[in-house]
Amino acid sequence: MKPCLVLLVALSLQAAVAEWSYQTSWYEKARQDKVARGTVWPQPRSIDTTSVRYYLDPRNFRLEADSSSAAVSDPECKEVVDHALSRYGELLFWIPEEDRAGVDGDETLDKLVLTVTSGCTRYPSLESDESYSILVSSDGATLRAQTAWGALRGLETFSQLIYGENGKHVVNGTSISDSPRFPHRGIMIDTARHYLPLPFILHHLDAMAYNKMNVLHWHIVDDQAFPFQSTTFPDLSGKGAYTRKHVYTPDDVSQVIEFARLRGIRVIPEFDSPGHMMSWGQGHPEILTRCYPTSFQPDIYYLGPANPARETTYTFMRKLFEEIRELFADEYFHVGGDEARFQCWKIKEAFHIRLEGAKLNRNDGWELPKSYLPLLRKEADGGEEDPRTEAQKQLVIGGEACLWAEWVDSTNFIPRMWPRASAVAERLWSPQDVADSEAASPRMEEQRCRMVRRGIPAQPQGPSYCEYEWNILSQLPNYRPVITSSGPRVTEGLFHIMFLNALVLAVVKCLA
Amino acid sequence: MKPCLVLLVALSLQAAVAEWSYQTSWYEKARQDKVARGTVWPQPRSIDTTSVRYYLDPRNFRLEADSSSAAVSDPECKEVVDHALSRYGELLFWIPEEDRAGVDGDETLDKLVLTVTSGCTRYPSLESDESYSILVSSDGATLRAQTAWGALRGLETFSQLIYGENGKHVVNGTSISDSPRFPHRGIMIDTARHYLPLPFILHHLDAMAYNKMNVLHWHIVDDQAFPFQSTTFPDLSGKGAYTRKHVYTPDDVSQVIEFARLRGIRVIPEFDSPGHMMSWGQGHPEILTRCYPTSFQPDIYYLGPANPARETTYTFMRKLFEEIRELFADEYFHVGGDEARFQCWKIKEAFHIRLEGAKLNRNDGWELPKSYLPLLRKEADGGEEDPRTEAQKQLVIGGEACLWAEWVDSTNFIPRMWPRASAVAERLWSPQDVADSEAASPRMEEQRCRMVRRGIPAQPQGPSYCEYEWNILSQLPNYRPVITSSGPRVTEGLFHIMFLNALVLAVVKCLA
Repeated sequence: MKPCLVLLVALSLQAAVAEWSYQTSWYEKARQDKVARGTVWPQPRSIDTTSVRYYLDPRNFRLEADSSSAAVSDPECKEVVDHALSRYGELLFWIPEEDRAGVDGDETLDKLVLTVTSGCTRYPSLESDESYSILVSSDGATLRAQTAWGALRGLETFSQLIYGENGKHVVNGTSISDSPRFPHRGIMIDTARHYLPLPFILHHLDAMAYNKMNVLHWHIVDDQAFPFQSTTFPDLSGKGAYTRKHVYTPDDVSQVIEFARLRGIRVIPEFDSPGHMMSWGQGHPEILTRCYPTSFQPDIYYLGPANPARETTYTFMRKLFEEIRELFADEYFHVGGDEARFQCWKIKEAFHIRLEGAKLNRNDGWELPKSYLPLLRKEADGGEEDPRTEAQKQLVIGGEACLWAEWVDSTNFIPRMWPRASAVAERLWSPQDVADSEAASPRMEEQRCRMVRRGIPAQPQGPSYCEYEWNILSQLPNYRPVITSSGPRVTEGLFHIMFLNALVLAVVKCLA
Repeated sequence: MKPCLVLLVALSLQAAVAEWSYQTSWYEKARQDKVARGTVWPQPRSIDTTSVRYYLDPRNFRLEADSSSAAVSDPECKEVVDHALSRYGELLFWIPEEDRAGVDGDETLDKLVLTVTSGCTRYPSLESDESYSILVSSDGATLRAQTAWGALRGLETFSQLIYGENGKHVVNGTSISDSPRFPHRGIMIDTARHYLPLPFILHHLDAMAYNKMNVLHWHIVDDQAFPFQSTTFPDLSGKGAYTRKHVYTPDDVSQVIEFARLRGIRVIPEFDSPGHMMSWGQGHPEILTRCYPTSFQPDIYYLGPANPARETTYTFMRKLFEEIRELFADEYFHVGGDEARFQCWKIKEAFHIRLEGAKLNRNDGWELPKSYLPLLRKEADGGEEDPRTEAQKQLVIGGEACLWAEWVDSTNFIPRMWPRASAVAERLWSPQDVADSEAASPRMEEQRCRMVRRGIPAQPQGPSYCEYEWNILSQLPNYRPVITSSGPRVTEGLFHIMFLNALVLAVVKCLA
């Protein structure tokens, strides 16, 4: 009995001490000023920060393209760079004028000089070089990149280095060398289950740029609705969209592509087939398979997947894909392949129509005639199974955060997606060994408050506060921005729980 | 064997038919125009709708108070009524001018005449009469209520009767007699875990009014932060708020109370004690109990619940509660009582300090000295156990939808709360037998799209669309409102699943 008592007392004391340390550490963490300032998300490949401070005067600071470099001399580069310098010029400073403190007498930085060393392409691609380097020192601030796309990534990073302190904008002496781990870092949006207004999609591209995401995978149509306005087959949206105004015109699509391009973001559309095509059947029932529940009543049927047994189906798809390939600039597009219900095809085989001209592969997809194979090949190579062997892992080009929209539209999309997708962004950009979530927590807190400050309502990660609370809904005259330093996330008392478990086990053992 | 085969075939056919009817019905429901139009949420006690249509001309239609009634003659009524007529005048019509169709030649309604038959009080209370009746007929439109509070409920209902059709605002001949099932229909907000900007709280009071919710339960302070600026004890927020700007001044509180009052909403503050008071200890550690993990080290302690063993604690609380009672107009306030950790008090008892002057009841709360009993009594009577007997059920005065804010702030509050809380609103307002969720679904769809249209981003309930999609974030010049008819919610194929289950069971049985 005595050893049991000793054990119980010891464990009780340990539990009490754990409770105490949990209470004090949790509360102190919530209070202390050891917040993340001027950290970068996603974490760069290599970053060295000194304690030397440089101050920036919002009235004087300039973002400048090095005129001797491709940033100015190459028109493809210049266009993207000029647009970015203008955008980031607005993002660098956020402290309202009435709260600013002067920086006369402080050591100031006057400008950031941007150099692009290689040529540029009009559109970003899977092969684009996104590397850049930044140096902030007493010699000034420089940003060097191979391409305009790297310049964009570097400008985003530079904008994150700046933090606010006592009314001043500050950046520490820093040296960064950065490039992404994976070239394909995407977000998938679903505009079929709920229509996302065009301005919302554009707004969301900004959120992606703030996290260095570079692919918008646009799952544009599905069973419920066909909002894409095809000029080849106007009845697709004419009869398949939710309403005549819940559509994306070719002009809308071009706007998305252009807005994305200027942010180094590729737009890859997905026209899912042969399943998930019910909305196509509103305007074009002839391309879908008639599924007969029973052969006794040939007049009763519902429409299922695309009909692989008719040559006209392939003609239709080819024409549509040609239009899509013309409109969407990217080299790739996604043909879906999700959840094609074979039951319907088998019933038809049993009852009416023989399958011709299509082969069904073992992953519930289908092989289109040879003319489409090049488009599919990349998908089939790496897309459909988790990579297990080293050889397979070498084939991985990146990943995506996908937000299916059955329960999501513009009312709740952004807080649901962010800052969750920021974690995906870092996994895909930063080196594999950047994997310590405790260390990442204050950086994510700063990134989420930064996004809120920039007009992206990323949701909170635990009791906390932001320098700028989300207040954009306010139209009332008594609006006051709340300006304070950001706080760290409160951590959970895991040890607390462990000790209690040990106590329970000890009691049980002693009593047994 | 033969009966098994027959069973299998029969079940297969049934499954196929179910699949077919699921497919067609789901898709047709998503397409058809049998949407809810001009329905009311929450469902009134008694409502009769005819098929006779009356058209409203936004340029001419008037909301008018009957000058012979208290609506005009009683100053207390007049103030609330005038404000409401102005607000609802803005809410009745939403079709943009460029999309409107003229109503000349149609049978029109010119005005709604509002009559308040009894006197009014300045503030709403638990005993307020919220009943009203509406009549829309060829004789015109009338709204009668006993009090200004009933007038508010009636105006909200009338605004919901109006629907859009082919560019016209329409209301059908209707007769309504309505009053709430429960008098206390609340929303609890938590402004301690995350600070909610003042304009956001005001904005949210509108959302409540659209759903006839009438109590704002304001859980204003807690462990993490003390944002309430007390004039009696300025260090409470001075040292306990997240920052000096994450506070609610007495003026802020008065604004909330006034904004709520004009919407017939009571504001009941909660200053949770004796637990959850850690932020109080920042400015006033002397009112909290020192919890000693071990008696061997009297200098090591953390702060726990309020210290019941000191008279000064009660003096402090009394002074604070007196200030609160002066500032907050309602007869009631909530003292919390949540999760007071006895462990700390017991350790102290064992080691240092005897408990004096406080009795601990079995629900982890505490009894304050007699002067506070009247405030607590209502809480203890009905608040702490689920009502089981008929006698207990008679004591229930209502309910609340509570949104604890560890993971919630203004970025995600509204879509998380709405339209979920609309369901709570109906359970508390409408008769007990209004409980058919299938029938309610199109009405909820209309209510959620209505809220979105009015600037409340209530989230979707399944693949669907709204006349006005949430588009307020857009600052871009290419903004276009999307105006179409609303669609019904897509239902799940429950029968489909049931048949498949039956099939599996049949197979198993046959093989066994």
